[in-house]
Order: sequence, then C-alpha cells, then structure tokens
Amino acid sequence: MTGVLPSYVVGAWWEPESDAGATDVRDASTGEIVARVSTDGLDLGAALEYARTTGQASLGGLTFHERAVLLKRFALTLTERKSELYEISAQTGATQRDSWVDIDGGIGVLFSYSSKGRRELPNARVYVDGPVELLSKDGTFLGRHVFTRLPGVAVQINAFNFPVWGALEKFAPAFLAGVPTLVKPATPTGYLAEAFVRMLVESGDLPEGSLQLVSGSVPGLLDGLRLGDLVAFTGSASTAETLRAHAAVQTGGVRFTSETDSINASILGPDAAEGTPEFDAYVRQLVVEMTSKAGQKCTAIRRAIVPSAAVDAVIRAVQDRVERVVLGDPRADGVTMGPLASLAQRDEVRRRCAELAAGGGDLVVGSLADPEVVLADGSRGVVPDGAFIEPLLFSFADAASDALHDIEAFGPVSSIVGYDSLQDAVDLVARGGGSLVTSIATHDPVVAVELMTGISAFNGRVLLLDRDDARSSTGHGSPLPNLVHGGPGRAGGGEELGGIRAVLHHMQRTAVQGSPEMLTAITGIWHAGAESRPGGTHPFRKSLDELRIGDQVLSPPRTVGLDDIETFAAFTGDTFYAHMDEAAAEANPFFPGRVAHGYLLVSWAAGLFVDPAPGPVLANSGLENLRFVTPVSPGDAVRVELTAKQITPRETDDYGEVRWDAVIRNQHDDLVASYDVLTLVAKHASSAP
Amino acid sequence: MTGVLPSYVVGAWWEPESDAGATDVRDASTGEIVARVSTDGLDLGAALEYARTTGQASLGGLTFHERAVLLKRFALTLTERKSELYEISAQTGATQRDSWVDIDGGIGVLFSYSSKGRRELPNARVYVDGPVELLSKDGTFLGRHVFTRLPGVAVQINAFNFPVWGALEKFAPAFLAGVPTLVKPATPTGYLAEAFVRMLVESGDLPEGSLQLVSGSVPGLLDGLRLGDLVAFTGSASTAETLRAHAAVQTGGVRFTSETDSINASILGPDAAEGTPEFDAYVRQLVVEMTSKAGQKCTAIRRAIVPSAAVDAVIRAVQDRVERVVLGDPRADGVTMGPLASLAQRDEVRRRCAELAAGGGDLVVGSLADPEVVLADGSRGVVPDGAFIEPLLFSFADAASDALHDIEAFGPVSSIVGYDSLQDAVDLVARGGGSLVTSIATHDPVVAVELMTGISAFNGRVLLLDRDDARSSTGHGSPLPNLVHGGPGRAGGGEELGGIRAVLHHMQRTAVQGSPEMLTAITGIWHAGAESRPGGTHPFRKSLDELRIGDQVLSPPRTVGLDDIETFAAFTGDTFYAHMDEAAAEANPFFPGRVAHGYLLVSWAAGLFVDPAPGPVLANSGLENLRFVTPVSPGDAVRVELTAKQITPRETDDYGEVRWDAVIRNQHDDLVASYDVLTLVAKHASSAP
Repeated sequence: MTGVLPSYVVGAWWEPESDAGATDVRDASTGEIVARVSTDGLDLGAALEYARTTGQASLGGLTFHERAVLLKRFALTLTERKSELYEISAQTGATQRDSWVDIDGGIGVLFSYSSKGRRELPNARVYVDGPVELLSKDGTFLGRHVFTRLPGVAVQINAFNFPVWGALEKFAPAFLAGVPTLVKPATPTGYLAEAFVRMLVESGDLPEGSLQLVSGSVPGLLDGLRLGDLVAFTGSASTAETLRAHAAVQTGGVRFTSETDSINASILGPDAAEGTPEFDAYVRQLVVEMTSKAGQKCTAIRRAIVPSAAVDAVIRAVQDRVERVVLGDPRADGVTMGPLASLAQRDEVRRRCAELAAGGGDLVVGSLADPEVVLADGSRGVVPDGAFIEPLLFSFADAASDALHDIEAFGPVSSIVGYDSLQDAVDLVARGGGSLVTSIATHDPVVAVELMTGISAFNGRVLLLDRDDARSSTGHGSPLPNLVHGGPGRAGGGEELGGIRAVLHHMQRTAVQGSPEMLTAITGIWHAGAESRPGGTHPFRKSLDELRIGDQVLSPPRTVGLDDIETFAAFTGDTFYAHMDEAAAEANPFFPGRVAHGYLLVSWAAGLFVDPAPGPVLANSGLENLRFVTPVSPGDAVRVELTAKQITPRETDDYGEVRWDAVIRNQHDDLVASYDVLTLVAKHASSAP
Repeated sequence: MTGVLPSYVVGAWWEPESDAGATDVRDASTGEIVARVSTDGLDLGAALEYARTTGQASLGGLTFHERAVLLKRFALTLTERKSELYEISAQTGATQRDSWVDIDGGIGVLFSYSSKGRRELPNARVYVDGPVELLSKDGTFLGRHVFTRLPGVAVQINAFNFPVWGALEKFAPAFLAGVPTLVKPATPTGYLAEAFVRMLVESGDLPEGSLQLVSGSVPGLLDGLRLGDLVAFTGSASTAETLRAHAAVQTGGVRFTSETDSINASILGPDAAEGTPEFDAYVRQLVVEMTSKAGQKCTAIRRAIVPSAAVDAVIRAVQDRVERVVLGDPRADGVTMGPLASLAQRDEVRRRCAELAAGGGDLVVGSLADPEVVLADGSRGVVPDGAFIEPLLFSFADAASDALHDIEAFGPVSSIVGYDSLQDAVDLVARGGGSLVTSIATHDPVVAVELMTGISAFNGRVLLLDRDDARSSTGHGSPLPNLVHGGPGRAGGGEELGGIRAVLHHMQRTAVQGSPEMLTAITGIWHAGAESRPGGTHPFRKSLDELRIGDQVLSPPRTVGLDDIETFAAFTGDTFYAHMDEAAAEANPFFPGRVAHGYLLVSWAAGLFVDPAPGPVLANSGLENLRFVTPVSPGDAVRVELTAKQITPRETDDYGEVRWDAVIRNQHDDLVASYDVLTLVAKHASSAP
C-alpha cells in the first residue's frame, strides 16, 4: 500500500507501485493533506479494451428496463451510505447545502434516470425514433429510425466542483444506453468520487466492466480512442478546445461533447422595479448563485444585466444580503459559505478579479483581502492555508467592456451592468458567446417573449423568474435531470441530461428501410403488412408469457343504423349537429350527411374486439394517436382489426403493457379510424384474476 | 459582361470585373467549354451580413407553414422549367435517369419539406420538443424544451455530383427553419446550380436574402463566420477535415455538419444463394449503383461483401449485367451510363484504381483502357476529351486489405470480398470506419437482426433487401427526404434530411423553466395552471378568428349509475368483466369492484363539453395521449374541463386544427382521465355551416 488514491480498472482496485511524484491534495479549509494522487504505470489501453469487451457484453445482456432497475439500486446504496459521503465532502470546502446539491443531487439523477428509463424507453435494447415512413405506395417498403448503442466506451472527464453529481449525471445516461463508463474525476476532489465508486463496487450490483475509475490524470487519454467511443468533458473552455482538437475527435470519429463554464447572465426585467416580488427574487437568486458552492459552478450568474436606473438599488440589495453570509469551515455550525476547493483556485480567482478590475470593473461589494472566517471549532480567524474568498460584485459602467463578457472568475464573483432597452439586454447576453443558462426576472409575458426570442439561440437553458414561481423555482444554477444541460459556443456546444435525450447521445441513429416483416424483426414492434395471426386462441386469453406480436383479432362487421346514432346521442348527451341534423351535416365540408359519432365507433370497436371473461388482460390504460379518416353514415358496417403491436413487461410488477394496433374499416375496406389501444396484461396465467 | 458564371449576392446578380484567371468548365462528354468560373472581387462579408440582417428579417416574418407554402411554390416553378434543367444537366455527363435523380429528386425534396412542414410543425415560429416536465409539486414551476432558429446564415458547400438535389436538400430544411442560405456549388457543375437559382429568383417568390449563390470557390469562406452560423458540407473526407479544423468551428461556435463519401458496403446474406430472388436483387442493385451517375455517388456500393462460396457466382452475374450497359454521350439514344464529370475526375479514379490493384484488388470486370463509346450522333468512337470509364469490379482475396476498406474510387468502381461468418461480415463493414449506408440482401429475419445489431452503429442508413421489397425498394444509393442521410466517422459524422430532424439541426434547443403563464406565452400552447377563461361564449361558437388559447368549458358533474354501465355494455357489446362481474373486478389489482368503461367516460365527456348547434367547429378529427388514471365506480360523478390548448390555422384551407386539453375528474377532484381532443374549426364565422 502506497497510500495513493486507488483506481478501479479491469475489474480490480489498482494503485501505482510507488508514490513517487504523487500529487498532494489538501483540505480546502485547513490545508491539511487528505489524499495523494498518481496513476503512474496505469495501463489505460487495457481498461479501454476491458470496457469494450467485458463492459459491452455485460451491459448488452440487459434491456433498458433492467439497466434502469440497477440505477435505482445504485441510488439506494448511495443513499444508505450518504453520511460517509457528506463527511468526506466537507473536506472539499462544501457546506452541508453544497454537499446536498452534489451528493443528493447526484443520487437524484440516478433515481430520475431509473424512473424515466422505465417510463419512456421500451423494455428492449433498441430505441425507435419517430413514426413509420411509408416509402412505397403498396406498403411493402417502409422506413424507420432506430437508435442502437455505441459499441465502445464512454470516457467521462469531470470538473472538481461536483465530484458526485458531475460523475453520476454522465454515468446514468451512458449506463442506461448500455455503454460502459471510464470516469476520470478532477484531482482536487477525486477522493470523493473514489468513495462513491467504492460503495457501488462493494454493493456487488455493478455489471462487470460497466464502470471504471481512473483516479488522477492520464497523459494521452484520447490516444487510445476510436470510432464507437465517446468523450464527455466538463471543465474549462480551454481544456475542451485542446481535447476537441485531438485527432481521435477530428478524424477518428470519436464523439465529443463538452459542457464548459460560461459567462451566464441574469436579466432584471424593466417591470421588476424595487419593491416588486420579482426584484426581491432576482436579488435573492443572484446572491445564492454567488455564494452556493462559493460560486464554483459552471452555471453561476456572472453577469447581472439590469435596467440602468436599477443598478444602484440592486447593488444595495446585494450588499444587504451578502452581509448575512457566514464564511468559514463548513464543519462549523452556522457557516453558509465555504472556501474554494484549493489555494490554486483562490489564486486563479484573484487573478481573474484583477482582470475584471483592469477591464473597467469597479468592486462594489466585498474585498479581495484574506477574510476573517469561522473556524471548525467555532472561533474566528484568518487562515492562510484555507482557500477563502469573500463574495465580490464588480460594477461596469461600460457595457461594451470585453472583460465583462469574456473573463470568468470561477468563485463567488459576479458583475453588474445596466441596459437601456430590451434589445440592449439581448445584445449583452449574446456578447457572452453562448451560455449554459440565462435567467429573466419579469412578470410581463411580453417582456419574457421578446427577451426569449432574442436570447434563446445563445442559451442551453432559460429560467423565467416571477412571483408565481419564485418559491417553487429550483434556481438559476441548478441543472435538472429532465432538462438539457449544456449550451452553444463558449458553453461547449454540447448537451447533457434532458432525460432520454442524453441516453440517445450515447447511441447511433440509423435509418432502416425494408419490408414490414423485416422492420418488425429489427424493432420488436409489429408493422402493418408483417405476418399476423388471426384465429386460434383470442389474444385477450394470453398472458405476456404466451402473447406474441402479430397475434390478432379480426372482428365481424356491425352495421350502424340511424337509431344507433340517436341512441348514442341520447345516452351520452352528445347531440352535435353532424350526428343529428341532416341539413347542417351536409353543409359541413367533411360529411355527406349525418354520421356516426367517433366515440360510438371506438366504443363499438371495443365491443367487437373484447373477450369479456376474466383473464390476463387487466385494464384498458389508455389510447393514443386516434385519427378519424372516413366518416361512417347510417347503413355502413364497421369492423375492427386488433393486432398485438408491442409488449413491454415491467421488471418490478407481475404485469406489463401491451400496445395494440387498432384499425376500423367500413364495408368498402376504407380506413375509418386508426389508433393504438394500451392495456395492462398479467405476465403469467397464474397471476390473472 | 465577362461571360463568367454569375453569383447572386446581396439581392442582385454579380460578375467579376474581368475574366482574368477564370476557370474553364467543360462538357463531360465532348470537352467543349460550357462555362467560365471566377469570384474574383466578390465581397463575401457583405453577403454574410445581408443574410444575417435582411435574410433573417424576411424569414423571421414568416411562420413554419408560410415558409412551407413557399417551398411548394419553388417546387412548382422548377417543375415548370424542368426541361431547361435537363438540357443543361446533360452537359455534366448525366443521363436522363441521372438527371431525374438530381432534378426531380431535388424538386421532390422541396415538395416533401413543404408537406412535412405543414403536417409536422406548428403554424408558428417556435418548435416545442417533448412533453411538459413538472418541476414542482404544486405545478407552479414547469419545464419545456423549445427550438428556435439560429440567428445567422447557413453556408452550404456542395459536391459536384448532384448540383440540384445536393443544393435543395440543404436549402429546404434551412429555409423551413427560417435560416437564410448562402450556397456554394462545386465548380465543375455550378452552371446547373446557377440555372435553378436563376429560375427561383425570376419567380419573385424568394424572400429577400433567403438564398444567395456564390458561383465559384471563395478563399477564407469560413473566416467571416461566427456563433449562430452553420456550415453544411458535402464532399470528400479530406476537405471536411480541413473545414472542421477551422477556428470558427473549433472555438467560434459555428455549427459544422458534413456528409462525406464513404466506403459503403452491401452484404449478400448466407441464405441468398444463386437462384433466390435476393441474389438477383442483390446483383441488380450492385450494378445499378456502379453505373448510375457513373458511380459518382457518396452512397454508392464500394464493397460487395458476399459469402466466400458465392464470390464467383456474383462476379459472373455482375459481368452479365455490365455487358448490357451502354456507355456514351447522354444525349445519344439508348445510352445508360455517361462519362464522369470531368477529365480530372477520370484521372483521379484511375489513380485510385491503381491503388486498389496495388492493395491486392484483382480487376475481374471491365478494363481501365479508354473505352469505345456511343457519341451524341449515335456513332461509336473513342473520345480523348470525354471523361469515360467502364464499370469496374475488383476482387479481393485478402479481406484484411487496407485498400479494400480505405480507398474510394469515386466512379463506376466496386470491390468484392468473401466472408465466412456473420461476425466476419460485421467486422468487414466496421472496417469502413463509418458509412452512409449498408444494404443487406436476406430473407431471413434472424440474419437481418444479427447483422443489423452489429453494423447499425457504423451506419447512417441500412437497407434490407428481399423478395418482398425488391420491386418497391428505392435502392441502396438513394437518400430520401424523410430518412436521415449521413453517417458516423468516415461518412462525416453528420445528419441531413430525415424530415423535420434536419430542420431542427438549424435551430437551438433550449430548456425553458417558468410558471405555466410564462410557458404558455413562450410556446403559444396553453399549459395547465395558466390563465383560463370559463364562462361567456361557448368556445365551440368561436371561429379561429375569435378563439384564444385558454378559452374553456367547465361542465357540470354527471353521476354514473350501474344502469349506465349496463346500458353501455349492452349497446356496445363491451361486456368486459371489469364492468360486469363484481367478484372478478374486485380480484383485479386496479379496480375496487365494477367500474365504468373508459369509453363511456370519454363519450360522456363529449356530451358534457359539446355545444351541439351548427357553428365553426367542423369535426372531431382525433384524440391523443389518453390515459385512464382513477377508476370510476357506480355512484361517482364525473365532470370535464376542456381548454383550448393550441390553434393551428391552415395556410391553404379556410379552417384549421384546434387541440383541446381535456381533463375528466370525479367528485373528489381526482384525475380520472386526461387527453387531447383534436378538432377542425372554421377560420371565420362566415365559413362555418
């Protein structure tokens, strides 16, 4: 044992043979050494190959739903051992609330992807995108788009600020897609990532090769990558540039996605004057973003863009709130803001602040001097080895200053600038060159629409803050699992999260053309024209064990009489003129005269296809994509074709969903209506009522 | 007039002041000069700025549907003047059939986008992506994803082989998205692009600044681009690399998409032995791909991957078919294959063929010598200045040859190689490093699924060819407007076409968070919790002119009795046990006992919300996303809330679609069912029955 932070590669924990040249990592508040980091001698090529073979095989054996169930188990494992993670997290300078964002936030991503994976993906390995495209008039040649997983490894390079959330928000969608992960945390906080990976390894739930950890920097990380692999990077724009320029990305076909810190903006609407709820919410949010995680967030507000007349009032209100911030060691009671992650970070922030000042920024809140802070024991003092810095606000008289729009001080630092018109505000946002997020405080929908129209192409996310959502808002700086996180230009040009969208970023979309039979085989979804099996046992008598796509009911015809229409109208109260008034119906551009209610037809169809006795079919849970095509007149006869289209057993219930293709035709075989019927069906005959 | 091919920039036709240094462009069959090309002195910066200002403004004034209607007018203009285009096209070496692919294919893309734009996009300027995401339990904070157009210019750089289709397949989605185009055709065939642009300009239908043409190469084309602009490139992989490496793309935030020629494969399945329909279809398709457009297609088959035992039979069959090819000047009767586009291309192809031979390729069909061809007057002869080359097939004994998988001869040239197992075949496809398309000839779904699983991540499109679709198939080499065109790795890593997907590539996806009121304002779609207006005039009495989203019907409650359930069961024939058998219903995991039919509730809901008298509501056209949530027992009372959610007037009809949000609740306000009702509604009171 060298005391060096271990890596987890090729199915085992690994440490270098010696600690020579290892990097010391220190507690953010006290400067004490908490870890040593080195990957000297690590065989990266072996780890990549292990992912591409063992990892691909073990994940490929699972369906989306099976992977989703595992994500939930990972979340439960980490939830159980959360207090251990919180204790370690405090060493990074994180307050309890910062740790909640990182640790509970990360666990929340696992839960969210587990849930979305089961609700929004099929219990299969292929994801079908978009509708059938009819490519020949006779229906023998169809097109469809399918997503299949990338055949390689997802290399995930994370930033130091969120060692748990940052890793899990990349891992969860990759895992759900079926792509093995190799994660490389940032050195300053990699010991916290090591801790959660260890918990997952110890749980025994990780499929072999699905998650590997490299604790430390690896020169030539991209050299071993090739088509089918993917790199997901979070960090500085300059590192992203270097990685993106690598030949593996430029010409090797390796997918590269980056999410970089950006010069995010927050606009105070012209209607949100001092005294309005929007003004208060705006200032509260601004100070939260300055102080949460000591401002070390890619999504923090760097530019407060406010009506020129409101600049002074906002500065005063920020000053008021900042005075209530308690800066100190997060292990002390009452501390609301911790240090930066390291002295190196503190020095970097001070350099950037000097550049902001040189570029015309006037420091109007806070001081750059070493602050007196609360120590772990509750006393107060100045800690030379603690990476503390006060919340700082720079005011810019010149809105055109390059520094204002280009310089990021990655700490508790924002700038404020005035605007004169909404177009001014839009132009200032755009000067950031592409951002992760912009927020707008306004209660005026006209202002919201005008600003949004101008800024949306420059932002991955826009938050609209007003009195209606000020209390329920999750905040400017919080990426959410169900919304895309990323942004154009300076923000990296990538997309993460956004629910299933991020899963698909780990897959290849391929257009498939072929006969209905072949598309049915490829997608696992029955396509009209493929083999169907009418007759024999009614499909409602089959449990999921027995049912096969293509099983079919062909009903006899049933003639619709005028009396039926009138009976239905009287029973439902639906006396719409198209059903009841021959002259008015004829005057309608779509109807030859009185026609049957669409709901009558759908109700009759159920009567025609249902097998009523107790059995495996448990419930009609819904209906989708209903279109009425040919009207039905009195005297017409309708019949229905019901075909099992898609079968989705649930992993954690003893039933699943069956989607049925329903088609109603008239006596001329014209299409009357088409739709999907959704039912819940027992898995086994024994579990049916 | 200098006789130089004009460009169309900044709203006017432009020619250089002199023809000094202009490039001569020659007829492919005869070598006669047909055009001279120079852009010396062209002010590219002014053209880009014109697009970003005038072009953005004129397209921004139109909705998706208005743009779609214009696309159809462009298509009709070109259809009317098609014969002029065919005549010019023959000079490029295109046969009548080649011209059909290029010209009618290009016009078809315009028609297709016009139709899809109106059917699949809202009549608005913002595209909403995916469902509402509930971000707070109380419903006051919601998330949604919207696409808004890029604020810059789409620079489209095209290849020489399809001067009409290649330009229109990029222009149509950009135009529909609302992004102005600057198109740069390839010099050898740019005179045909100039011709169709001139027709569109002369039609007077082009919105100002929406389409500009640069006839010739422009050094530093990417230098003037910035965040918000987009480059779409089709051509060689090496040029794509150079463009992608430009700082505008690497760090400037300019979107770059490329579609490059690739080493596409076609697999003959093990079941498709000589004598089967699949064998015949395979060989027919292979020869079509070798000879169509003289093999100058990014999507042509470069590698025929066939069972080792079938190699000789395929070669013989190809030889048979190739002997029937009539090579010559496309203006002569009976010619089925024309020359390459230029002598330079012919020489390039010959060099590549030498590399294939050096890499182990054995020329088994055709000869590299100057062929005797049919001349325009019907006589036969060798034309030294005509870019003719015979169809050529190389056979590779060594499947591992680099040349086989890396060298592309962009002409009527394919290679054939044997495989021993399906995994072999998969590995060979993957050796191409990413392709636009692979086709598989098999009638065995198991073979199709196994091959597809292995190759799909390496392909943008896969075509499954068998006896069922051999006659209706559009063919290996044909990209279609409704399917994505592009591919990973060597194929450029981009996506074009694929219907609306390509429109969205010209837009930025942004997550929006806010109150229901704000999301309603931003999207134009009513969100639950936003202002609604019950009471007053029933919304069924309002034409599209008068109706506003948020207009609402709140119905009185109606109590469901056991007799109602029995009446409905008797009327519809739907006697499913959950409605009819108390004991069986109770045994069901979802029901407390007998419950009302879902279709009864939806039918009653219509009775509760409908206003029956003749008026602007013309028809119930469908229903979407119906989910049954809480069962309804005898004695429960249901009521319905119906709210106008989205209004989509049709540009070319006097009615449009209204989507209504329908919610059924019980006496406890529990959610019973939710769905969208689709109706057709007259635009004006005067056009209603």
